[in-house]
Amino acid sequence: MFQQHIVIDGLQYSHWDRDYFLMLKASGIDAVHATLVYHEDARATLTRFAEWDYRFERNSDLIMPVYQVEDIKKAKELGKVGILFGAQNCSPIDDEIGLISVMRQQGLLIMQLTYNNQSLLATGCYEQKDTGITRFGQQAIREMNRVGMIIDMSHSAEISTLEAIDISERPICISHANPTFAHDALRNKSDTVIKALAAKGGLLGFSLYPFHLPNGSDCTLEDFCQMIAKTADMVGVEHLGIGSDLCLNQPQSVLEWMRNGRWSKQMDYGEGSANNSGWPDPLPWFSGEDGMQNIYQGLLKTGFSDKEAGQIIGGNWYDFLEKSLTPMLSLQ
Amino acid sequence: MFQQHIVIDGLQYSHWDRDYFLMLKASGIDAVHATLVYHEDARATLTRFAEWDYRFERNSDLIMPVYQVEDIKKAKELGKVGILFGAQNCSPIDDEIGLISVMRQQGLLIMQLTYNNQSLLATGCYEQKDTGITRFGQQAIREMNRVGMIIDMSHSAEISTLEAIDISERPICISHANPTFAHDALRNKSDTVIKALAAKGGLLGFSLYPFHLPNGSDCTLEDFCQMIAKTADMVGVEHLGIGSDLCLNQPQSVLEWMRNGRWSKQMDYGEGSANNSGWPDPLPWFSGEDGMQNIYQGLLKTGFSDKEAGQIIGGNWYDFLEKSLTPMLSLQ
Repeated sequence: MFQQHIVIDGLQYSHWDRDYFLMLKASGIDAVHATLVYHEDARATLTRFAEWDYRFERNSDLIMPVYQVEDIKKAKELGKVGILFGAQNCSPIDDEIGLISVMRQQGLLIMQLTYNNQSLLATGCYEQKDTGITRFGQQAIREMNRVGMIIDMSHSAEISTLEAIDISERPICISHANPTFAHDALRNKSDTVIKALAAKGGLLGFSLYPFHLPNGSDCTLEDFCQMIAKTADMVGVEHLGIGSDLCLNQPQSVLEWMRNGRWSKQMDYGEGSANNSGWPDPLPWFSGEDGMQNIYQGLLKTGFSDKEAGQIIGGNWYDFLEKSLTPMLSLQ
Repeated sequence: MFQQHIVIDGLQYSHWDRDYFLMLKASGIDAVHATLVYHEDARATLTRFAEWDYRFERNSDLIMPVYQVEDIKKAKELGKVGILFGAQNCSPIDDEIGLISVMRQQGLLIMQLTYNNQSLLATGCYEQKDTGITRFGQQAIREMNRVGMIIDMSHSAEISTLEAIDISERPICISHANPTFAHDALRNKSDTVIKALAAKGGLLGFSLYPFHLPNGSDCTLEDFCQMIAKTADMVGVEHLGIGSDLCLNQPQSVLEWMRNGRWSKQMDYGEGSANNSGWPDPLPWFSGEDGMQNIYQGLLKTGFSDKEAGQIIGGNWYDFLEKSLTPMLSLQ
């Protein structure tokens, strides 16, 4: 019963237009964690929020913003898709601890401490050396805990990630990455990280970005679900969700902004390479409106119960958001 | 029965520290419209919000933010002072229409279209020529109406103010100014403006800033209440409130920032002059913790009923905020 479950995609960065919102609604997804910014500073982040406000105004029949977890249930009831915002880097807070509460009030619910590079807070997964959590990073984690902004370490390096899990007084997430046992890549996560994440109540969203998958764009639904099953055996099903990293209909310029920001004059190919510099081909069984339903069916075939499959396609994300988004008064 | 009424001061810009919050609480004020910024742009406005977030964290036993009108009743119940934010200029939106909804979401409930000078939206009261509402200003008024951000014309010129009243689909306010019949000053308002404001359901907050008053710092409580009575005779009591413009404990540098911003290399003395360039002496019967209670008693002595005095010291502001702060879906 796919439609009885709350369905949440824990990360997308598609081209957000009305056609796409219609597709999202048709897909049965109740809420999606949308990347608001990659490298935008505080001021530019306001413009991204403004652009979304205008999308909400023009598409109020299809989408609505999510500020608290209850908004996701409201979206489901209203037949709309809830949009919850996250940043893939800590650039929205500039160098200012006080902007964490400001951005949370604005609706930034999730923030990565780093993208691929060193940030003011921690180290990204493509750096040679991993500083762990910086002095500012330790303050930022405490403040994010206090105001109910979720720490996301998807693009961070191993030591930084382990330290964030340890320092944070609340569970954190890796919204979109896969285990290295399934595909060894700098962006994927070791068993050590996944176990530490789960031990503290955190959540891992499985990615459908081909560079994170065994056999890339040829990865089968069966292989994808087997990867989930093996991870469930390791840490339990309640820590697992989907964070598809779906980037549909985006031009090459967006890929270059993701990878290069303003920090490099040379092309950085990220997970690609000079002769494979474009967007990877999307997975045929995921990129259409049946994507989440296909995963649900695949999970059932792999041996998960209906309840477990429901947890993985959204229930676990919902529970994680429910315990993560309220301010933590004890830290005041 | 002073304490039975909701008491709202419709504008203050005092030095916001714990001692002052203790004084505010002791004064019986349930909510105060606090000036967040004078000339700060969007980015600097975020820092002002961040500073307030930290004040709320450190003084959570005394103050709380107001995002909706219900928060004022909540503050009264909890014995706290609700803080509602306004800008004395349109600088927080830079040149970007989309920042109106962003700033509203952040908690900016009230915005003046101009301070004393020409702005991108309208003309300030100290300019020689009054353009009226600009092209951008017309769009901004519509957007402010839509999202529930209150238009304040306290520092604006006459034609601009009349046009704003006319163009706006919702009532607007003049949060802190007095009638020119009581004291003729560029910052005060003509009978024409006050009548037009009231005819559209707007609100006038009487100022206690000495430069706006007959006899300046020597203005008596009786004269102040007579001014209110005469205005009530003209437009009815339901359009009248208090917007004290109280600026206690602020250094000269703040006065210079108010008056000069970044726009002048020469000193502009605003309502003062070269040989009267400092803060005016506050009114002895208003600047202490009995200020609002003194006004209440003065209004009773002047002949207002208890109900009417209660409306003037806060009830009318409450009703005005109640009808002004909800988004206006019909404009979506």
